[in-house]
Amino acid sequence: MKGGRLLKLTLAYDGTDFAGWQRQKNGRSIQGVLEQTFRRLLGQKIPVVGSGRTDAGVHAQGQVAHAVVQTRLTNRTIFKALNALLPEDVAVRSVSTAWPGFHARFGAQRKLYRYEIWNSPIRPVLDRHRLVHIPVPLNLNAMRSAARRLKGRRDFKAFHSSGRPVHSTVRTLYRLSIQKSGPRIRIEVEADGFLYHMVRRIAGLLIEVGKGKIRANRPTGQRIIPPTAPARGLCLVRVRYPS
Amino acid sequence: MKGGRLLKLTLAYDGTDFAGWQRQKNGRSIQGVLEQTFRRLLGQKIPVVGSGRTDAGVHAQGQVAHAVVQTRLTNRTIFKALNALLPEDVAVRSVSTAWPGFHARFGAQRKLYRYEIWNSPIRPVLDRHRLVHIPVPLNLNAMRSAARRLKGRRDFKAFHSSGRPVHSTVRTLYRLSIQKSGPRIRIEVEADGFLYHMVRRIAGLLIEVGKGKIRANRPTGQRIIPPTAPARGLCLVRVRYPS
Repeated sequence: MKGGRLLKLTLAYDGTDFAGWQRQKNGRSIQGVLEQTFRRLLGQKIPVVGSGRTDAGVHAQGQVAHAVVQTRLTNRTIFKALNALLPEDVAVRSVSTAWPGFHARFGAQRKLYRYEIWNSPIRPVLDRHRLVHIPVPLNLNAMRSAARRLKGRRDFKAFHSSGRPVHSTVRTLYRLSIQKSGPRIRIEVEADGFLYHMVRRIAGLLIEVGKGKIRANRPTGQRIIPPTAPARGLCLVRVRYPS
Repeated sequence: MKGGRLLKLTLAYDGTDFAGWQRQKNGRSIQGVLEQTFRRLLGQKIPVVGSGRTDAGVHAQGQVAHAVVQTRLTNRTIFKALNALLPEDVAVRSVSTAWPGFHARFGAQRKLYRYEIWNSPIRPVLDRHRLVHIPVPLNLNAMRSAARRLKGRRDFKAFHSSGRPVHSTVRTLYRLSIQKSGPRIRIEVEADGFLYHMVRRIAGLLIEVGKGKIRANRPTGQRIIPPTAPARGLCLVRVRYPS
């Protein structure tokens, strides 16, 4: 830390016009935009470390990141200045001084994602950037039944997209709920961690079950490879750390 | 009608990228886009008449329009084809055959508008195109008190922007409610008709009252000229016709 101040940042963003969280040479990233904004504000190169990457088109309401800064500016001032400088599709929700040793990625204990579907013959218009349109009626009971079978500690290998090697594909799903309000279906998934594309594949499986294309009681995790549902429906809602 | 079929259309649109409802030479309008789409579908020039104009940036969930078509296509087919051809920021919610003499504008009995505010020091991100951001806390009680004083039949001259002459500035407000859910404040206004900018000036007045800049019990309709609140917060929710 070399005498710097370790900040915990909570962030919201609209992923539509981003190539994803991670900094890259070509393509606008949330991490890149945050680092540019810190440089403008403090004149320093400040690496921003997120709780995890989100893909292109994926949104966040409660992404968490850390950064070490060397400044006399208060957290309140940094909060206000970042929000004044950031583009309108990224906002800082909070800035606080983290406890020593805090790490946004390695310290994350649980993450909550939301996946939203617009289930109506009529296209969504005002929220089309964050809803996935499924015009055919979905069977909620079948989806809920499939969701119950995914909860708990199990191997989510079938829900892992290749390309990112991992030590283990075992994860614990604490919550997998499906709520419906009018044409809007909201899937919430909380786990101790997620594999690459895991939430979008869970959503993809549930949508196929809802359409009647996969049976709800079919053994999961073994044979079927669930389709990856579109990024725009996904939002990182909250990241929890040990208190 | 010359033997044509009189259609009633219910429409939703995101006003962000439109210069407003009304067809114009330069600038993308909802009316223009609908008429182009009808021409593509039926090969005819079909004027589309709306219940009223909405300004640039104003949205709709339930705009109503009429059009006379000469076709053997069913309403169901027209509904599907229009939605397939329309850009993603306009959707047709329903197509039905109207009763003889139906006129979307002259027949409208009541309109319901919603005005949405995001009242938080943190900017809205995912819904920024349809929420107006007010970072300072608004006094809901004062706003509700001012709203009560606006209800009923009265002269809304002070809420009328010049430039569009009208016979009378008397209107009846059937409803003016203010709901809060988290940082989101939702104002709903239903009336027998609206003057130009009237809803945005009502919202503008209520916001000033909420900020404490105008007293809630100050006589309205006479002296004060309420500011016109931004277009993006406004959405035409429903238009009612005699049944």
